[in-house]
Amino acid sequence: MNRLLALSADERAAGVVAFSSGNHAQAVALAARWLGVRAAIVMPSDAPQIKLKRTRALGAEVVLYDREREDRERIAVKLANERGVALVPPFDHSDIIAGQGTLGLELARTALARRVDLEALYVPCSGGGLVAGCALAVKSEFSGCAVYAVEPRGFEDLAASLAAGERRTVAAGAATICDGLKAPTPGAITFAVNRRELAGALAVDDEDVRRAMAFAAENLKLVLEPSGAAALAAVLKAPPRDRRAVGVVLSGGNVDAEKFADVLKSVSAAS
Amino acid sequence: MNRLLALSADERAAGVVAFSSGNHAQAVALAARWLGVRAAIVMPSDAPQIKLKRTRALGAEVVLYDREREDRERIAVKLANERGVALVPPFDHSDIIAGQGTLGLELARTALARRVDLEALYVPCSGGGLVAGCALAVKSEFSGCAVYAVEPRGFEDLAASLAAGERRTVAAGAATICDGLKAPTPGAITFAVNRRELAGALAVDDEDVRRAMAFAAENLKLVLEPSGAAALAAVLKAPPRDRRAVGVVLSGGNVDAEKFADVLKSVSAAS
Repeated sequence: MNRLLALSADERAAGVVAFSSGNHAQAVALAARWLGVRAAIVMPSDAPQIKLKRTRALGAEVVLYDREREDRERIAVKLANERGVALVPPFDHSDIIAGQGTLGLELARTALARRVDLEALYVPCSGGGLVAGCALAVKSEFSGCAVYAVEPRGFEDLAASLAAGERRTVAAGAATICDGLKAPTPGAITFAVNRRELAGALAVDDEDVRRAMAFAAENLKLVLEPSGAAALAAVLKAPPRDRRAVGVVLSGGNVDAEKFADVLKSVSAAS
Repeated sequence: MNRLLALSADERAAGVVAFSSGNHAQAVALAARWLGVRAAIVMPSDAPQIKLKRTRALGAEVVLYDREREDRERIAVKLANERGVALVPPFDHSDIIAGQGTLGLELARTALARRVDLEALYVPCSGGGLVAGCALAVKSEFSGCAVYAVEPRGFEDLAASLAAGERRTVAAGAATICDGLKAPTPGAITFAVNRRELAGALAVDDEDVRRAMAFAAENLKLVLEPSGAAALAAVLKAPPRDRRAVGVVLSGGNVDAEKFADVLKSVSAAS
């Protein structure tokens, strides 16, 4: 929304091209509909059906690509150039980071209103835009807040990059149920922010994420998709001591009903 | 909470006895814990495990009874008399109706703040306390609002009572997945309010309720128990025409994970 609002009238009239594993696709499609902008969105062919269906239902043109063989960014850039339209990347753009940061601002203001001293914040991390924006926003109000990015095991590119002091790419081929957190490399802009702002990057495995999804369903009455439950999984796995005031970002609930039901059943059977 | 706050200091020190199919039990248990009051709660032995577990976890003493053979109210009254403590009935008490009505007040104020003219409201109905309280509250702000009680098929005692102009009891033995909406007779106080305030009572069957639960999971990202989804089921079954501004009360999400997963799978398979 923020990126589209920042476009000129001419740019908006021409339309936009975005690329996304799913939730950014819906966000762009909805913002485009609200503003009367044509949107084409490059999405992986193995994205959850619910994400493809909802993006199309919002009026966007969906262009599928093969996640294993093709480079989505190259496809999107080519398409944008051919059509002469603006690109809406999923994370590595200052307007996107700022827009995603409004979530952190809302959380910080709610904490302030309730007189809660926010000591830590956990945020799911793919390319790092959401956590970068949230860190900037939350630390503007709570300068001592420790902000953690949470990555799925096998896609710990931010952890590796923070350790190396420069951007690193993880080896291809890892499997995770977190379909929205599969970026293999941090963004250039997001990493510049995150290396300065974050307290660290944590990893969770599929079983942690499944348990967090079941916990959210039972206790929060919320349907979370795997990627959306990653930060909660990190907190449940290693609960903060001494009842510290901790924020947790739940970043999506677009999971196919069958898959969600399977997760609930598998956790229920194991407990 | 409202009933416990209205007790005298001596009454609170003595403790309370409540009876409930489940969610009222948790509400009483939590309010009692907050106020330091001992609570014993008479619950059906076939209540969902999650409701029994959560009520006990909140520190209440749970007294089980057989829904098919025993009269829970008689058990609760006897227990309250033996112990010399106050009774917290699930619906037929003015303090309970007023407390449940705060939900309607919140909804009405939200509508006012958003400049929405609330034209209708749908509320799940068992003994009729929630819908009575909500009707009184909402109509204090929107006098023309049409308030509908929604009952599960087979437990349409309010519909029958409204038609007869006096309280009627439904025949025993009907089956419904709405475990929290099985009151066979309207309350005396709740019926006196509802016959004056309601626009009508609607019925939904199990399949309507299952579809509403799946709809809420996919579109609202909310976990609803069958009883909690009854009003939504009525609205989805017969959507209001002309984009009228309609309120829907979702009154609970305490459903066993396995059962919830089965509902999602059955609806997904049928669609």
